[in-house]
Amino acid sequence: MGGTGGGVSSIHILDVIRTKRDGGELSDEQIRWFIEGYTADRIAHEQASALLMAIVWRSMNPRELATWTDAMLASGVRLDLSGVGRPTVDKHSTGGVGDKISLPLTPVVAACGAAVPQLAGRGLGHTGGTLDKLEAIPGWRFSLSGAEMLDQLRTVGAMIAGAGDDVAPADRKLYALRDITATVESIPLIASSIMSKKIAEGTDALVLDVKVGSGAFMTDVDSARTLARTMVDLGDTHGMRCAALLTDMDTPLGLTAGNALEVRESVEVLSGGGPPDVVELTVTLARAMLEMAEVSGTDPADVLADGRAMDVWRRMITAQGGDVDADLPRASHVEELRAERDGYVTRLEARAIGEAAWLLGAGRSRKEDPVSAGAGIVWRVRPGDEVRRGQVVFELHADDPAQFDPARHAVAGALQIGDTPRAPRDLVIDRVD
Amino acid sequence: MGGTGGGVSSIHILDVIRTKRDGGELSDEQIRWFIEGYTADRIAHEQASALLMAIVWRSMNPRELATWTDAMLASGVRLDLSGVGRPTVDKHSTGGVGDKISLPLTPVVAACGAAVPQLAGRGLGHTGGTLDKLEAIPGWRFSLSGAEMLDQLRTVGAMIAGAGDDVAPADRKLYALRDITATVESIPLIASSIMSKKIAEGTDALVLDVKVGSGAFMTDVDSARTLARTMVDLGDTHGMRCAALLTDMDTPLGLTAGNALEVRESVEVLSGGGPPDVVELTVTLARAMLEMAEVSGTDPADVLADGRAMDVWRRMITAQGGDVDADLPRASHVEELRAERDGYVTRLEARAIGEAAWLLGAGRSRKEDPVSAGAGIVWRVRPGDEVRRGQVVFELHADDPAQFDPARHAVAGALQIGDTPRAPRDLVIDRVD
Repeated sequence: MGGTGGGVSSIHILDVIRTKRDGGELSDEQIRWFIEGYTADRIAHEQASALLMAIVWRSMNPRELATWTDAMLASGVRLDLSGVGRPTVDKHSTGGVGDKISLPLTPVVAACGAAVPQLAGRGLGHTGGTLDKLEAIPGWRFSLSGAEMLDQLRTVGAMIAGAGDDVAPADRKLYALRDITATVESIPLIASSIMSKKIAEGTDALVLDVKVGSGAFMTDVDSARTLARTMVDLGDTHGMRCAALLTDMDTPLGLTAGNALEVRESVEVLSGGGPPDVVELTVTLARAMLEMAEVSGTDPADVLADGRAMDVWRRMITAQGGDVDADLPRASHVEELRAERDGYVTRLEARAIGEAAWLLGAGRSRKEDPVSAGAGIVWRVRPGDEVRRGQVVFELHADDPAQFDPARHAVAGALQIGDTPRAPRDLVIDRVD
Repeated sequence: MGGTGGGVSSIHILDVIRTKRDGGELSDEQIRWFIEGYTADRIAHEQASALLMAIVWRSMNPRELATWTDAMLASGVRLDLSGVGRPTVDKHSTGGVGDKISLPLTPVVAACGAAVPQLAGRGLGHTGGTLDKLEAIPGWRFSLSGAEMLDQLRTVGAMIAGAGDDVAPADRKLYALRDITATVESIPLIASSIMSKKIAEGTDALVLDVKVGSGAFMTDVDSARTLARTMVDLGDTHGMRCAALLTDMDTPLGLTAGNALEVRESVEVLSGGGPPDVVELTVTLARAMLEMAEVSGTDPADVLADGRAMDVWRRMITAQGGDVDADLPRASHVEELRAERDGYVTRLEARAIGEAAWLLGAGRSRKEDPVSAGAGIVWRVRPGDEVRRGQVVFELHADDPAQFDPARHAVAGALQIGDTPRAPRDLVIDRVD
C-alpha cells in the first residue's frame, strides 16, 4: 500500500494509531514496539500524541493495559529489595490538597515492623509534591543511590526519595507529552503511569489512596472506583499485593497547604497531636499497609501515641541530611481573612484552597519552576465548625505581598457558611481489594 | 490555574484540545487562533495532532467547520478571477483509480463557454494525480504565475496548474501532519481541506465528484453523501455555487491507470472516441458545471464530437509548454496476463488495480518520490464483458521487470469471472445540491 511511508520493522506507527482510532485492540507486539520506540526517540512526538488521544477515546482492555504497563516497566530498572530483611510496602496517593499523609505514614508503618521504600514526586498544579514538602527541612536531600536506599531501609526501615532517571523512563517521557497534549485524563494511562513506577520500586505490597472530589483528579466516585480497580488488578498481574481506599477530597486534609506548613502539621501528628482527619487517614492507611505486608502485632495508633513513630521520623530525615531540630522556613508576609457572617461551615472547597496555595508560591506550573518553602494557606475552620463574623478563618502566607490579591480571589467562595450545622462527609468512602 | 503553562494570548492550546476532547464546541476565536498559530509555528506539532485526533473523534459542527475552513482560506491568498471575462467553474474529484476525467473535462467545459481555473495536485498512494499525468506530456509545466493563469483563462478558457505555496498554506501544513498521524479520515477535516483550496481558487462555481467504492476514500454511500453535503454547504457559506455527484469507484474508470496511459486515453475521448464510461462521466460533469456556471447553449457531447474540445486541449497544453504532437513515454517492459477461465466479468476491483499501477511505478508513496511517466496497467475487459480462457485481460507496463511480480500479486483476484453476465453498477449514484 502507498501513502504510509516505510520502516524496517513490520509494525508501522500508522497502523498502530489507526487500529486504536478505529476501536480495535493493539497486539502485545505493537504495544511493546511503541513503548520501546518512543522511549528510544524512534517515534515522533506528534505520532505518539495522536495515539495517546486515540487511547483517551477508545481506552485499553485489561490485556492491552497489562502489556502497556509491563513495557513501561521494562524500559527501566526494577529495584531488588530482597536484602531489606523485612516485608516491604508502599502507599501511593493520586494527589489532593493538603495531602501530607506520606510524611507521618512512612515512619508509622516502619515503626510497626514493615519497611517503606517510597519513591515520591514533585507537585504540579494545585496539589503539592512530597519531595517539595520535605525539601522545606534544612539539609534534607531527595537523591539516594540504590545502595543508600537499601542501607536506609535495613537500618531505619523507611525512606522517601526521588525516583532516579532509570526508573520507568518511558513513563517520564510519555507523561511529559501527555501533560502538554491534554491526554492525561485516561484511566488506563493514569493507572499504567502510577503502577509502572510502583512496580519498579520492587515493593511486596501497595496501598493506593484514590482521592475523590473537587480537589482531586477524579471528581466522581464511579471513575475513582474504576481507577482503583484497574490499578489493583494491575498490581495482582505483576505479583504485588494491592488494595485501594477511596477517600474524600472535597475538603482539603488537615488545616494547612504549603511545604513547611505541612511538615509542621505532620510533626504535630507524629507528636501524638495534629488534626483528627490527618491522624485518622494516617492510621487507616497504615493498618491497610500492614495488612497487605502481612505484618501484625503493633497498632499504628500506639506508635503515634508513644513516640516510636517520631523516633523513626527523626532517623529517616537525619539519614537523608535533614536537620530535624532546625526552624522551618516561614513566609515573610502573612495576611488574615475573616468570616463575613455567623453560622456553621458547610463546605470548604479543596480545589480553591489548592489554587490559593499555588498562587501564593507553594506550587509550580512547570516542572522546572522553583517553589517557596514557606508559602501556603492555613484554614482555621473545617466543615461542621461554628464561626462568628470577624473571626480569622484563613491565613495566607507569601514571600511577595503581590501574591495576596490573586490568592484572595481564588479563595473567595471556598468557605461556605450556613445557618445549620451539617455533618462532614466520611473520610474513607470505599475500599477496593 | 496551575499545570497548564503560560502564554501571551488568553487562549491556551490545552483548553482548546480539552474542549474538543470532551465533546464541546470550539469558539470561532479558538479556531482562528489555532489555525493562525499552527501555520506560524507557534503551536507544537504534538499539540496540533492531539487536537486533530480529538476532531476525528468528536467531529465539528457546521459553524465550527465554516470557521475552520475560513481560517485556512485566510492563511493564504485568494485568486481574483474577475478579469477573466466569462463565468468560472471548476471540478474536484475526491480521487479514484483511472480517474483522468479532469483532462478531457477541462477543455470540454471551456469549449462550451465557461472558464476552468483548475489548481490540481499530485497523487499519493493508489490514486494518481492530475499534475503527474500531464507531466507525461513532453515540455508541459505545471507552474504558472497568477498573471499567466489569468492570461491563459482569458485567451484559452482553461488551465490546469499546480497550486502555489501561497494558496491555503495552513492546509498544506495540516495535511502533512494528518498524513503521518492517521488523522486524515475525518469528514470535516477532508471537507475543509478540499474546500479551502477550491474557494481560494476564486472560482464562481464548483462541481464535486465524490467517489464511492473500494477504490475510493469513501467506501460507503452514506459517508460519501455526508461528505458531499458538508462540502456543498461549505461552498454555499462562502458564496460559491456548488453541486456534488456521487459516482461509482468500485470499478476503475476507463481502461487504463498510469500517467502517459491515461493521457492517451483522454486524447481518445477528445477525439470523439474512448471508453464509454469516461465519455459519460465527462459529459455528465460538464453539464453540471455549465449549469452551476449558468452557461447554456452548447452541449458537451457536441464539442467532443466536432473537435472543438480537442482544439481547446491543444491550445491549453501548448500554452503551458507541452508538445501535443510528441510521442508520449512508454514503459520499457510490458507483460500480459490472461484469463484463467471462460465466463463473464462480474467484478473488476478498483483498489487492487490502483495498487498494481502504484507498484508498477505510476504512483508514489512519499511526496518527494518520482513517478514513472510510462508505467501503469491496462485492463482490456470491464464488468459485463464476456471473456475466453487464455484471452489477454491485463497489460502491466513497467520500467523495471522486477516490478511485475508484486503487481501480479496485487492484481490477483481483482478480476472476477462468473458464469452469467451481470449488469455493471450505475456510474452516477446520486446528486447533492
